[in-house]
Amino acid sequence: MSEIKVVTNILKANDELSALNSKKFDEKSIYVINLMSSPGSGKTSILEKVITKLKPEMKIGIIEGDLYTTMDTQRIESKGVPVVQINTEGACHLDANMIQDAINNLNLNGLELLVVENVGNLVCPAEFEIGEDIKITVLSTTEGNDKPLKYPLAFEKSGAVILNKVDLIEYTDFDKQRFYDDVRSINETVTFFETSCTKDLGLDELCIWIKNKVEEKQNASKGK
Amino acid sequence: MSEIKVVTNILKANDELSALNSKKFDEKSIYVINLMSSPGSGKTSILEKVITKLKPEMKIGIIEGDLYTTMDTQRIESKGVPVVQINTEGACHLDANMIQDAINNLNLNGLELLVVENVGNLVCPAEFEIGEDIKITVLSTTEGNDKPLKYPLAFEKSGAVILNKVDLIEYTDFDKQRFYDDVRSINETVTFFETSCTKDLGLDELCIWIKNKVEEKQNASKGK
Repeated sequence: MSEIKVVTNILKANDELSALNSKKFDEKSIYVINLMSSPGSGKTSILEKVITKLKPEMKIGIIEGDLYTTMDTQRIESKGVPVVQINTEGACHLDANMIQDAINNLNLNGLELLVVENVGNLVCPAEFEIGEDIKITVLSTTEGNDKPLKYPLAFEKSGAVILNKVDLIEYTDFDKQRFYDDVRSINETVTFFETSCTKDLGLDELCIWIKNKVEEKQNASKGK
Repeated sequence: MSEIKVVTNILKANDELSALNSKKFDEKSIYVINLMSSPGSGKTSILEKVITKLKPEMKIGIIEGDLYTTMDTQRIESKGVPVVQINTEGACHLDANMIQDAINNLNLNGLELLVVENVGNLVCPAEFEIGEDIKITVLSTTEGNDKPLKYPLAFEKSGAVILNKVDLIEYTDFDKQRFYDDVRSINETVTFFETSCTKDLGLDELCIWIKNKVEEKQNASKGK
């Protein structure tokens, strides 16, 4: 029972810090995406593509979450945008406190889009709010269409779901209709994207959608 | 600080229960595999193949770990072996206490091989001993060769690593030499297997190796 109480306290403390982060992002009119998936679904590859396509149009910052390494940060840095690395030292998710530390090391002035690439884990990250505007979950076709029902929280909490590696679907038994039906049964209002980073499919649509979200947030803050 | 203390206490309590499970498995001469990977690497598919190939030669039992669903248990039950389902209700890993409960619902008499399919998660399951003889981690080629360095604990603690979906490697940029070098840098003594469940590759080698391990344990207990 004491374990449960501690977990509840941790989540409550996290929610409070998350609200502070969110307030800061709103004040600066920064649209914040929390990008989640299993290891190897293609979060970093999608990010590389999105940065390349959107960098001429807006100021982008990235927070990279990893257990120990800086491999993804090196990939993102080569795209010429500011990146802050969070090493969780074994912890299985990012939390609001880590994000608070990270944004103290990031120049937020003028930033319009901040993408936080979470630790590769389809379970734990979905439990921790970090102050984001939206969670986006990536699933790759090679992981199988049964994952939304098996790991529902990430799909339930996401505003958008990206089905990645659609170029490989023909080599798998992935049932796309089943996948869509299952995600909709958990989350009626989710927006879907289908992408392939190797074949550059669906990424323009994703970027247009992100750009609209960023503009909505800019306009909302101007209207205040 | 109190959070860290609680975590340490949880891991200590888990180690004690794990030792009890291990003692029970040794008394019954049951070889126990803790099968770990990200969601969608192919744990259940590998298990289906292993059961089909080894069932004529030994008595096999399975424990299926999942957050909520019984989808994998249904797949395994159709292979005609006893299965106990553990639903973690959102928890991101199995622990020794869950296994203790599960084996109270499994007839251990005469059992020679018990495979525990852990929750799909490359981070947390590796932290919790469950009383197993060996941990085996599965990685699929479509997840990318950078995963051992990014998620080292599972690879460090495993006695064997299975590279699955080798039939898809030609459609990816997976660098096999890099993968082997990286795993070896974390774990010098690991045994490697390469498998494809759709093409039935490497599974006979895996089954022969498992059979040897099971026989070693049987012989060791006879020698006592």
